[in-house]
Amino acid sequence: MRILKFALLSVAVASVSAVASDTDLLNKAKNYFKPLPKEIPAPKDNPTTAEKVELGKKLYYDPRLSLSGVISCNTCHNLATFGVDNVPTALGHEFKTGGRNSPTVLNAGFHIAQFWDGRAKTLEDQAKGPILAHVEMAMPNPEFVVLKLKTIPGYVKEFKKVFGGNDPITYDNVAKAIAAFERTLVTPSRFDKFLKGDTNALTKKEKEGLRLFIDKGCASCHNGVAVGGEMFAKFGIVKPYPTPDMGKYKVTKKEEDKYVFKVPSLRNIAMTYPYFHDGSVWDLKEAVRIMGETQLGIKLSHDEIDKIVAFLKSLTGEIPESARTVPVLPASSKDTPKPKLKIHD
Amino acid sequence: MRILKFALLSVAVASVSAVASDTDLLNKAKNYFKPLPKEIPAPKDNPTTAEKVELGKKLYYDPRLSLSGVISCNTCHNLATFGVDNVPTALGHEFKTGGRNSPTVLNAGFHIAQFWDGRAKTLEDQAKGPILAHVEMAMPNPEFVVLKLKTIPGYVKEFKKVFGGNDPITYDNVAKAIAAFERTLVTPSRFDKFLKGDTNALTKKEKEGLRLFIDKGCASCHNGVAVGGEMFAKFGIVKPYPTPDMGKYKVTKKEEDKYVFKVPSLRNIAMTYPYFHDGSVWDLKEAVRIMGETQLGIKLSHDEIDKIVAFLKSLTGEIPESARTVPVLPASSKDTPKPKLKIHD
Repeated sequence: MRILKFALLSVAVASVSAVASDTDLLNKAKNYFKPLPKEIPAPKDNPTTAEKVELGKKLYYDPRLSLSGVISCNTCHNLATFGVDNVPTALGHEFKTGGRNSPTVLNAGFHIAQFWDGRAKTLEDQAKGPILAHVEMAMPNPEFVVLKLKTIPGYVKEFKKVFGGNDPITYDNVAKAIAAFERTLVTPSRFDKFLKGDTNALTKKEKEGLRLFIDKGCASCHNGVAVGGEMFAKFGIVKPYPTPDMGKYKVTKKEEDKYVFKVPSLRNIAMTYPYFHDGSVWDLKEAVRIMGETQLGIKLSHDEIDKIVAFLKSLTGEIPESARTVPVLPASSKDTPKPKLKIHD
Repeated sequence: MRILKFALLSVAVASVSAVASDTDLLNKAKNYFKPLPKEIPAPKDNPTTAEKVELGKKLYYDPRLSLSGVISCNTCHNLATFGVDNVPTALGHEFKTGGRNSPTVLNAGFHIAQFWDGRAKTLEDQAKGPILAHVEMAMPNPEFVVLKLKTIPGYVKEFKKVFGGNDPITYDNVAKAIAAFERTLVTPSRFDKFLKGDTNALTKKEKEGLRLFIDKGCASCHNGVAVGGEMFAKFGIVKPYPTPDMGKYKVTKKEEDKYVFKVPSLRNIAMTYPYFHDGSVWDLKEAVRIMGETQLGIKLSHDEIDKIVAFLKSLTGEIPESARTVPVLPASSKDTPKPKLKIHD
């Protein structure tokens, strides 16, 4: 009887201390992370409206925004695969590959800037890039995009409704609509439940992983609402990472920007392989191991990596079903420029 | 007063005769066409179940069924664009083009056979083709498809649930699941309402077009539940159509199959441009004009073409939203073969 009492007491103490430890972890985590809001805040000059989001979704899924007529934003940022293409570097026009791994569009509007090197400040700016990139959608210039959209009666009507004015179809408005759609791509996961106070939303192992993620220093860069995306960092702070890609330096030509990239968001990271700017690593455990070595100068044990990866998997969230409902695209007219396979022919 | 009475009487007579004429047209139409059922009937060896449809949808949207990892069934049979790619001929692996225009998957299970030359008897047979075609999804062989799917834990579980047995992931079962999904791709339109007795479901012009469509002879080939797809015919019965493509002859080597193609379904035809097996014609009016000339030996007037096209537009239907909800694809594992850009490298 005394033994039983003691045993029960032990369980109670252990459970009290587990609760205390969970609360401690939660408070610690709150210093680094924030739960996702319902929608990404919009800039003043591009308020999110239901109609704009719907138009943006159409443009996002529309392959006519490419020269070939078969590549859409959704080709490389596929919403069936967590907003990425799951290939090392983007495959675009003429089956050419881009230089970097396609980052996910999910939660991207929380980032400090867009692209791996942050060369676009906003989602609006970002949206204008791939449409014109020769190895991506390969449209020759913004004017051609506008001209093409103007030949599609359904778009003429919808742009008018969304943007008003005499000339609603502009390249800026194309980007605004796409960005508005992308601001709905928020993917809450069990980690958000945890951050909101439900300490049972994560398993014991995941919580151990979270604690390691904070204590080992991962959270010094991967933090905030998107668990990353809020700062830039050199890839190879402690130990160089072998890459010919100079990162932000390409844009700024500043010595201190050599090998500097945007710290990627780790939300949905388990689904957005392969990893790093060059998509060179397919295994999340290996990616975590490399990060420890190059960024923190530590050798994480197998057990630590295992736990951190368990935590990272808890960041896999739900893509809103409205975003995953493929729109019915408006028909072309006989004036709509025909698809072209070669940029110069 | 007498004049007014007469006028009223005239209107009444005209309206009675319009109703009589509508009923006459409806009865005539019923000799040729049938309204779409909710779902396409399934063969005995592949009954449609909700779980199989869901698995089939995943496979349909999954780019991992291609060698490059970026081309899915939905790339060329895009459900945002009525199950086609809206380009002359399919664009596939290495940006190579196929020889023929991608037919829509919508309502395809009603057809007598699959492909333009009918070389596949069933949807199941058809599904096995493009995955292996070098200019489409370019998988080297069925074994590799099976091997790849077996490395994806989510699929292992789902195939087991759907097909049971010791070895549920087979190329046959891949095709069965995709076919089951495709049997849900039924697109009722206003024409079905008309066929069910609501003669106001079509406008006056559309009804005039329908009457012409029957009277001029279009309906002798384009008939049945899918308004086509139920027979084969020579392209150029009366006047040759300039094409190097020998159609069914390529498969059978029979003299009588030269230039013979499956009569395409005209459901959603206004949205599935460009037209014909070679995708050479973008304008539906032009396509109708050519059909009159080559198949019927008649010169349709502008007004007749206009009305027939108005009728054809009434065949644009609704794609079920369930089919348009992009699935969340199961994650690859570290054993999953990596995407390859070149067939031989």
